Amino acid sequence: MEFIDATYEFKCPEGDALARAEALLLEQTVETPRSVALRYPYVREHRMGEVRRVDRLDEQTVRAVLALPFTAESNSPAQFLNVLYGNSSLHPDVSLVDVEPPPSIRAILAGPSFGIAGLRRLVGDPDRPLTCGALKPNGLDVDELAAICRELAEGAIDFIKDDHYLTDDPRAPFRERVRACLAVVDDVSARTGRAVVYIPNLSGSPDEIRSQAEFAQQCGVGAVMFTPMLHGLPQLRALCERELDVPVFAHPSFGGSVSIRPPVLLGKLFRLFGADASIFPNYGGRFGYSEQTCAAIAGNLRAPWRDLAPAFPVPAGGMSADRADELVQFFGRDTILLVGGSLLASESVRERTKQFTERVRKAAELAASTSLKF
Amino acid sequence: MEFIDATYEFKCPEGDALARAEALLLEQTVETPRSVALRYPYVREHRMGEVRRVDRLDEQTVRAVLALPFTAESNSPAQFLNVLYGNSSLHPDVSLVDVEPPPSIRAILAGPSFGIAGLRRLVGDPDRPLTCGALKPNGLDVDELAAICRELAEGAIDFIKDDHYLTDDPRAPFRERVRACLAVVDDVSARTGRAVVYIPNLSGSPDEIRSQAEFAQQCGVGAVMFTPMLHGLPQLRALCERELDVPVFAHPSFGGSVSIRPPVLLGKLFRLFGADASIFPNYGGRFGYSEQTCAAIAGNLRAPWRDLAPAFPVPAGGMSADRADELVQFFGRDTILLVGGSLLASESVRERTKQFTERVRKAAELAASTSLKF
Repeated sequence: MEFIDATYEFKCPEGDALARAEALLLEQTVETPRSVALRYPYVREHRMGEVRRVDRLDEQTVRAVLALPFTAESNSPAQFLNVLYGNSSLHPDVSLVDVEPPPSIRAILAGPSFGIAGLRRLVGDPDRPLTCGALKPNGLDVDELAAICRELAEGAIDFIKDDHYLTDDPRAPFRERVRACLAVVDDVSARTGRAVVYIPNLSGSPDEIRSQAEFAQQCGVGAVMFTPMLHGLPQLRALCERELDVPVFAHPSFGGSVSIRPPVLLGKLFRLFGADASIFPNYGGRFGYSEQTCAAIAGNLRAPWRDLAPAFPVPAGGMSADRADELVQFFGRDTILLVGGSLLASESVRERTKQFTERVRKAAELAASTSLKF
Repeated sequence: MEFIDATYEFKCPEGDALARAEALLLEQTVETPRSVALRYPYVREHRMGEVRRVDRLDEQTVRAVLALPFTAESNSPAQFLNVLYGNSSLHPDVSLVDVEPPPSIRAILAGPSFGIAGLRRLVGDPDRPLTCGALKPNGLDVDELAAICRELAEGAIDFIKDDHYLTDDPRAPFRERVRACLAVVDDVSARTGRAVVYIPNLSGSPDEIRSQAEFAQQCGVGAVMFTPMLHGLPQLRALCERELDVPVFAHPSFGGSVSIRPPVLLGKLFRLFGADASIFPNYGGRFGYSEQTCAAIAGNLRAPWRDLAPAFPVPAGGMSADRADELVQFFGRDTILLVGGSLLASESVRERTKQFTERVRKAAELAASTSLKF
């Protein structure tokens, strides 16, 4: 059996640190009550992982190392992230502080294709740190960018990268920009004997990125830039695997996205990007979201907003069927109540589910009869 | 001219709140010293945006609304995120608290394709909140999942979604799972006259996701689930635009990724996913990363780690050429020193760049002659 070893830190000022670590393990593995998982011999043996160690760092903070079952051969890069820090990322006090992938990881994630040696080779393998400049501000036309490129190249810089705000903007279209800047660095390299490498920024839809990568490589660029957190980390991997024969510079933009508040991310952005329903951790469940936060998420999903269709709020995350009445009152009619493990935990799932759906039906009738707003 | 109106909150216990807001505006627009941007009439007029308002919320906190130039027609969904919260996400104290896209946004982001009305229709438009269950834990085989599915369906649930940990695992392969669960809900729907909708989880590489979406829709699923933050928010958009004729449930997994520490995200994960060089905010620049953090990022990128090639650390973010000596000493040989606006700010970019590259060369020589470790 193989494991991701994931190290988390979390706040635990009082109470049982081991119990908290075990809850986190459950969250990142079977995501059901323990009793549900234990019913299935295969799951019990192969999917529950273990708490490797728990250390109290100070009065507030605990560090725990969890072994999370993961076999690379039968999984994807996206699933690696999911198991590593999917739900646990939603606990406001849980930080991922280290990771050690399983031995089989190479089957799906192979690391840099070129790395330090390959990038060094591009610029003639000088025995020193390398240098890099940037083309910006965005809004310059191709001639202006090429002029700056020339300045940098003539200044004996090794790498010249696009600003990450440079896209396929009509003001400096990707293809024209690449041609112009490559011509500059090729000219300077030829004249001086010093290699100068221009690095265009790939961005846009998956199709656009693919076509940009193809074009740039046909033109002979030495490397490209990409923003993995903006486009999705698995896209970086797909790009490396399928499109690129040159090294890639990763830009950290959006990498701290970190503090997008849930009503914005799960309410507005998910909707704006096309979600018809948005699942979020409900108040009073396993996560720390407040009633106010949840009401704001639901509000943003449903409120009139431009000409966008409203989307369903789907409160979830440790909800129980017992809370049907309360939640119907709280969220109102246009809601999908998602109950996961609590339904499965009962002896008869079917019966428990019936009770739940009945309660929702009744609570809705009651609410409709007592409230004009429902 | 069109703008994204972005509202941020940041810590500003003392000092000039307006100046801080203006710095943030610069970061999210031209990302150069003001003096550089002002040189170009087009940039000055069209790309610099404005601070709409600044309010002090309390002694610690300021809220600012920035107008960020953005024309949807000439941009992508990824670029929308980039302008909205690209670099500013990397300031540990800056939160994005609201967003209002420009009128033209519809050209690239159209919101839900089906929304509440479409999802309601799927289950017969009942006049009440809808209900949803989940198939888990992962590790169950197809028969076991289908059995739970039947339990839930018989319990009169409206929607039954895959757990987000269910992928194309050999234990319950996507295609077999979809067929089996669809057969269950179709059977129950036919027998009871109640619509029950099964929602499979799409995940994996872009190709796998596309092929899963195609298969699931051919089989007749009513909706699908997707984790936008795991796969990249722009992927959600691409999926909606090109692959899906059914509603999509967005799962928040990885949406708080929030507190992945920079040495893990920018050092280990970017490398693991294939970055040959990783740009990160250097200490003493515009961002709050410490020396320790930067050393750890660089360390993780370069350290022997399994059989992965090492990757280049690229410290950046408000660095100046003047710091060449210090930074060469600090980061050592296998480093790409990225200097952006500070090179462009000088009267002669070429000269300034020459000075910079010279200094690096000399500092490297000096370091090599004085330190065995270099």
